Amino acid sequence: MRALKKNSVTQVIGDIKAILGDRLSTAPAVREQHGKDQTWAPGAPPDAVAFVKSTEEVQRIVALCAHYETPVIAYGTGTSLEGHFTAPYGGISVDLSGMNQVLEVNAEDLDARVEAGVTRKALNTHLRDKGLFFPIDPGADASLGGMAATRASGTNAVRYGTMRENVLNLTAVLANGEVVKTAKRAKKSSAGYDLTRLLVGSEGTLAIITEVGLRLYGIPESIAAGVCPFPSVDAACQAVIQTIQLGIPVARIELVDEEHVKAFNAYSKIDLKVAPTLFVEFHGTEAGTAEQTGLFGAIAEELGGGPFSWATKEEDRQRLWQARHDAFWATKSLMPGKEAFATDVCVPISRLAECVKETQADLAANNLYGPIVGHVGDGNFHVVLYCDRADAEELKRVKGFYDRLIRRAIAMEGTSTGEHGIGSGKMGFLEVEHGPEGVAMMRQIKQALDPKNILNPGKIVAL
Amino acid sequence: MRALKKNSVTQVIGDIKAILGDRLSTAPAVREQHGKDQTWAPGAPPDAVAFVKSTEEVQRIVALCAHYETPVIAYGTGTSLEGHFTAPYGGISVDLSGMNQVLEVNAEDLDARVEAGVTRKALNTHLRDKGLFFPIDPGADASLGGMAATRASGTNAVRYGTMRENVLNLTAVLANGEVVKTAKRAKKSSAGYDLTRLLVGSEGTLAIITEVGLRLYGIPESIAAGVCPFPSVDAACQAVIQTIQLGIPVARIELVDEEHVKAFNAYSKIDLKVAPTLFVEFHGTEAGTAEQTGLFGAIAEELGGGPFSWATKEEDRQRLWQARHDAFWATKSLMPGKEAFATDVCVPISRLAECVKETQADLAANNLYGPIVGHVGDGNFHVVLYCDRADAEELKRVKGFYDRLIRRAIAMEGTSTGEHGIGSGKMGFLEVEHGPEGVAMMRQIKQALDPKNILNPGKIVAL
Repeated sequence: MRALKKNSVTQVIGDIKAILGDRLSTAPAVREQHGKDQTWAPGAPPDAVAFVKSTEEVQRIVALCAHYETPVIAYGTGTSLEGHFTAPYGGISVDLSGMNQVLEVNAEDLDARVEAGVTRKALNTHLRDKGLFFPIDPGADASLGGMAATRASGTNAVRYGTMRENVLNLTAVLANGEVVKTAKRAKKSSAGYDLTRLLVGSEGTLAIITEVGLRLYGIPESIAAGVCPFPSVDAACQAVIQTIQLGIPVARIELVDEEHVKAFNAYSKIDLKVAPTLFVEFHGTEAGTAEQTGLFGAIAEELGGGPFSWATKEEDRQRLWQARHDAFWATKSLMPGKEAFATDVCVPISRLAECVKETQADLAANNLYGPIVGHVGDGNFHVVLYCDRADAEELKRVKGFYDRLIRRAIAMEGTSTGEHGIGSGKMGFLEVEHGPEGVAMMRQIKQALDPKNILNPGKIVAL
Repeated sequence: MRALKKNSVTQVIGDIKAILGDRLSTAPAVREQHGKDQTWAPGAPPDAVAFVKSTEEVQRIVALCAHYETPVIAYGTGTSLEGHFTAPYGGISVDLSGMNQVLEVNAEDLDARVEAGVTRKALNTHLRDKGLFFPIDPGADASLGGMAATRASGTNAVRYGTMRENVLNLTAVLANGEVVKTAKRAKKSSAGYDLTRLLVGSEGTLAIITEVGLRLYGIPESIAAGVCPFPSVDAACQAVIQTIQLGIPVARIELVDEEHVKAFNAYSKIDLKVAPTLFVEFHGTEAGTAEQTGLFGAIAEELGGGPFSWATKEEDRQRLWQARHDAFWATKSLMPGKEAFATDVCVPISRLAECVKETQADLAANNLYGPIVGHVGDGNFHVVLYCDRADAEELKRVKGFYDRLIRRAIAMEGTSTGEHGIGSGKMGFLEVEHGPEGVAMMRQIKQALDPKNILNPGKIVAL
């Protein structure tokens, strides 16, 4: 990218201080925390962190950053995984966690509007007594603005879709400091270019999202969850394919490999059979979930799966899914002192078993510990790699594996990232996946909407 | 828009003729047919029509049009409704109907790739023996490229989504003649800007779609369809809201008003009670559809609806939905010699009854015939207006009504178009809906991706 006017940072900090007072911080610890995520992505602190309270404040800050040509980087809960919010060129981190109001819930329309800093758990707590919920669940208690910005998804996406399908509209501050509302509240529209979907997944590089309109769902009358071990990854993947082909509206269907099961058993004090295992959940009426579990049980049995353990009581379900959600911490606890390398490929499900098996063989051949967990209804799986960055030889093996994994997935008509995003971490693979024409198109869009390149520079397509 | 180099049209026609031979036509009848749709939108013929057979031919034609700065306009089946394919600045109409091959069907992944000229009925015929179907059904047997370009939807969208949700990826020719493939086959991805969704609904103004990757679904084991009269539009809308809130996965839920029922009875020789009526359809297992119809029946009864007529045999269902799909022709046959003015507003369903009732009152107050039909699960409804364009007084009343209808819907947080698109017909309302900031963003995107303004100029955002 071309050089930004870094010498103007002092001026912009002074001007923002005049607006925010002590809600602008230049404390080293605050800057560090806003410049480094949980993963291997190299960190870089912003020059200052602005704790904003309103769209108007964001607007004023972006206008100042535009004037001084200073980078401005949106920050939610800091749970993203590809170096999305690092500040390689310095600038202002806009922390939206203080914008945490649920602005409206339209129960009849099954939609809500929230400030960008509202987290998914906070929203669901707010909704519970209305009998409604927001299904997208990336594991972390991320902010809904951040989830929109990274096109997040998670365990429920197989049934409810991703943020792509569940964002109704966005309020966002553009690079010139203007505010756009990308759509009204109609469930569908053919009125011009899909600005909502353009900003969903744009990772703060085209605009800073300040409010999110979301689709909601009625809390199902009945939820049935269970775990089922399989004799092989192949058999588990076949069960997934048949379930989806039959149209069984499975709400969650997650694959964990033997390594993860071992880690769960140790970390969460549970006692699962060490085998490739599917965690499943069905939502519906009492009769509906009974039928779904019966159909799925028959598929699993035919493929040699079982015995099945069902959890119908809420506390049992919660414990089961908590174990699944703690996957990262469970494996991390087995690898003290090592850094985690998140991976996130997604392939067509017909290629899933093949992709997982080749990946497991690659891990074994390179003597790497890489437990696998996947949102397999969508063909999305994560190999969590642990590495001691100081160990140059290990680092080289990890990086080689990482590169092969992504190229393998793309060669199988998949993607380098099913739900984490490009950030700074996967920029090198964007052209492998989209070709030079696709990346050129993205660059043209970035150039058109952020000609001064102030919005989260150095991410997705660095100008 | 700035003047295009119209004098170069003869040269570009000559150059394309050298590629296509007699598949390039300048016959007046062919040009007329490619310059005027079924609606009131003023027609304008292109200078020539290119009947293409491959992406490469489209690429060569667009490259020539770019060189000569000549408009180039995609044409599918000519069933769009907002003057999308008229050629107000002349140029080349690219007729994609000859690109009619289903290129691949991946049954395990529930996806397919088709050339842009394949129609939805042709695809479903191709899929039938595989037990799969493509659900999006705008009524007309439109091409899938055209449906993607207009972000079409129709009767099944309440359950299966619109083209926005069901296009997996697109192959498209850009304004510079390059070919982009917007995504691979993974069901989800967070890899960069959502080029797929940017082109879906872009109406040929950002690229010409030549291939479409689509999501498929298993043909349901059981389909139950029925019609149910209601005492009022209010009661019918309440039934829709309760159905959706309860999470009953209704596949189709269509409102027709008394005027339409009268027209159906006359045109389709059926005998429905003249009342606001819901046409519904449920998809699932035998037990599932039985449960769904029972739940819906109870809701309807509580709201004074009924008696219900169910059609479980395929031929009865087909006849029922054929009547629904013939709505346009049924009402047109009552208004011989008049032109149809299509409308297409969509509002949050909580506002639907209010919007329909105000609209009916407006029709009555202005002595206009405007039967109403709606995809009410999405809040989308059509008032079909008939008008004798030569009757200046009638035309004025129709235009006044049309303008109020759209502003009413937008004021209720809805959209000017739920599924037809902007084309040339609704450009005047784009800023009312999206504000100057939204329209400016769209213009910046158009300018960046089509700097010479050759792709379907004069539509959506005319530069």
